[in-house]
Amino acid sequence: MEEPFRVQTGQYRPLNEESLATYLAAIPSVAVTLGGEPAAWRVKEVGDGNLNLVFIVEGPAGGVVVKQALPYLRLVGESWPLALERSYFESLALTEQARATPDLVPRLFATDRVGAAIVMEYLQPHIILRKALMQGRKLENLAEHLSTFLAESLFKTSDLYLPADRKKTLMQEFCGNIELCKITEDLVFTDPYRISAGNRWTSPQLDDTAAAFRADAPLKAEVQALKLKFLTNAEALVHGDLHTGSIMVTELETRAIDPEFAFFGPMGFDAGALIANLLIAAIAHGVHGQGELGDAYRTWILDQAELVWTGFTTKFRALWETEATGDAFTAELFADAAGRAALSEQQDRYMANLFADMLGFAGCKMIRRILGLAHVEDLESIADPDIRAVAEHKVLALGRRLILSRNAMTGFNDVLHAVEEIDI
Amino acid sequence: MEEPFRVQTGQYRPLNEESLATYLAAIPSVAVTLGGEPAAWRVKEVGDGNLNLVFIVEGPAGGVVVKQALPYLRLVGESWPLALERSYFESLALTEQARATPDLVPRLFATDRVGAAIVMEYLQPHIILRKALMQGRKLENLAEHLSTFLAESLFKTSDLYLPADRKKTLMQEFCGNIELCKITEDLVFTDPYRISAGNRWTSPQLDDTAAAFRADAPLKAEVQALKLKFLTNAEALVHGDLHTGSIMVTELETRAIDPEFAFFGPMGFDAGALIANLLIAAIAHGVHGQGELGDAYRTWILDQAELVWTGFTTKFRALWETEATGDAFTAELFADAAGRAALSEQQDRYMANLFADMLGFAGCKMIRRILGLAHVEDLESIADPDIRAVAEHKVLALGRRLILSRNAMTGFNDVLHAVEEIDI
Repeated sequence: MEEPFRVQTGQYRPLNEESLATYLAAIPSVAVTLGGEPAAWRVKEVGDGNLNLVFIVEGPAGGVVVKQALPYLRLVGESWPLALERSYFESLALTEQARATPDLVPRLFATDRVGAAIVMEYLQPHIILRKALMQGRKLENLAEHLSTFLAESLFKTSDLYLPADRKKTLMQEFCGNIELCKITEDLVFTDPYRISAGNRWTSPQLDDTAAAFRADAPLKAEVQALKLKFLTNAEALVHGDLHTGSIMVTELETRAIDPEFAFFGPMGFDAGALIANLLIAAIAHGVHGQGELGDAYRTWILDQAELVWTGFTTKFRALWETEATGDAFTAELFADAAGRAALSEQQDRYMANLFADMLGFAGCKMIRRILGLAHVEDLESIADPDIRAVAEHKVLALGRRLILSRNAMTGFNDVLHAVEEIDI
Repeated sequence: MEEPFRVQTGQYRPLNEESLATYLAAIPSVAVTLGGEPAAWRVKEVGDGNLNLVFIVEGPAGGVVVKQALPYLRLVGESWPLALERSYFESLALTEQARATPDLVPRLFATDRVGAAIVMEYLQPHIILRKALMQGRKLENLAEHLSTFLAESLFKTSDLYLPADRKKTLMQEFCGNIELCKITEDLVFTDPYRISAGNRWTSPQLDDTAAAFRADAPLKAEVQALKLKFLTNAEALVHGDLHTGSIMVTELETRAIDPEFAFFGPMGFDAGALIANLLIAAIAHGVHGQGELGDAYRTWILDQAELVWTGFTTKFRALWETEATGDAFTAELFADAAGRAALSEQQDRYMANLFADMLGFAGCKMIRRILGLAHVEDLESIADPDIRAVAEHKVLALGRRLILSRNAMTGFNDVLHAVEEIDI
């Protein structure tokens, strides 16, 4: 794998449409990718996220994307300062993910630690998966790609694959991604369950439910147990924000983007984020979709959720059979028949725990999108608040069920049964 | 808490009895502690460990200990190079432990990162706990102190107490302690279960048992599951080598020393190390002790093991009630009666998991002392190999039982029952 070019910027300064061509011309692989003279490059700022400037730059030969961190949370404004270093962590994560699964992340051309910028492949005509799902598009390779991304990126950054020294060296870097982890700790695991200035929900329709969740002691205790796992279980390099807005797709291609929240955490957090957002999309379609067409697409999404999970588990275990080069479960101890049988039992237990974690984290991610600060377009786009509240109540009920029943559920069928019971 | 003085040495060079006085005279707090003129200070090299030079320096007013890392494993010789940085990690760990429980660790006067040395309080007339146990001494404060050390040092470096940013910053430092963690990963969790050049055991008495352990697939699988926890579960700053040779005692005082293996790992590892070594001491006294006197002392040690565990759990939970300032289990979510009840259930579960972890790690620590590289004097001092092998068989059987039954055992009584069944 080619390592990204390191830009040596003296001090941080926000890039703009004027300064960008000069900046990019100094990066050989980018100049080649764009082609022609810098004067001919077209630059467009397109950032619609909460945290960054995003530029698309196109030249005669091709395009690149430049993403630069802003020193505050764009959604809230300058009152919420945010470390610029998150750009560096995104470049580190993209680099490690590219080692594991190069075809499912954007190519990284260059990183600029001081300038807090990265230069990446311009994905075109890719669109955000969330929008594709809202449009009712059926993407035939989606589940295959997402399950591969999860299996490869998680297995190959875990102790099952990496020697302990490499794992600790990587983890040491990512321990620095403190602020973005803290956002998750607060916004996903804590704020939806207490009075917090950033929370919002469809009001007055959800007022009573929001109050009930804040008073739901057993639920809060389980969510905090999951938060403890998030804080302590350094199982693999997780993307950290793997919702359907962090996936770009075409009919045939899939790429995971925006891993700025990456850190060494529990594998179930990434799988749970994806499954949660697919379940939200399915419920949204069931509530406001077009009759039978809406129902059929809802079923398609649920099928994809199941395929993502079953594909992930199959691929993860296959990697464990063939690429167990890490320091965990030292392979040579299990080379004979008895060893293989004993290891297989441990693998079953490992996957069962991972399933429970996935469900718990999925539930947390569903609830925070209804009662917390950041919401999702699948539901926000339902203009009628009464109809939106119907969908949101279902998402909340399902999220709560997944958290509280996660250790009793034994397979994805149990998830689908829960969906059918709640989403009628 | 006073931070240790930082010595600025230009390059690493082993200290010796000639160079030491000049070295120490430049450290104000040490010069005061020793008193008088450097020419009057008496220096003695006393290192009997495997990894370091240790000097006792005495002046007219008092003494200090200087511990300097050697660039190889002293026990094996220069063929086994070892990072000098472990001295730095020891100083970091001593500093953090002193924040949590200042009376139970030696005072740290100075650290020298490049020189790989630390200057500490000279503990006198303290002796190593392992030797005190071999001598049959009953130390009335021992269990009280050890349980306090475990509770304070683990709780106060965990996410239950530390805010997430402080925990991640500390953890980032300790991620660098790669080599010493690797020693544990290999010597405790892996080598005793495979053919390895460093392994030794009482032969031929234990030959068949050693072979049976290498072929015991379910045991190996459980040990590797514990190793995975060691690799991934960053619960607290653990001492990492808390056997009875890392504790110094007088009749009334107790200090934990030598935390050079420290890292962010599972809490049960420290508790298990202590309990394991107490159980080994008890079994050794039962086998070669002096009749009724030996039996009475064996019972005293077992009582201490139980008191360490029950004292630890009581103190740990008390800290969780009164000092839950960390980001895990955010205290404000559990302020009302229902919240307290739900949190209490989670605490029960947390302590039950910690008990199982402790048992599993204790079992691993017992087995490695019989079949692995490093043995313990409690057993090595039994001159007759037939008698020693009787004790070692019991230790192995108990260790194996603790690992395989750790999730079925519900309290320390179950441990004592297992001891009585095996040690008859």
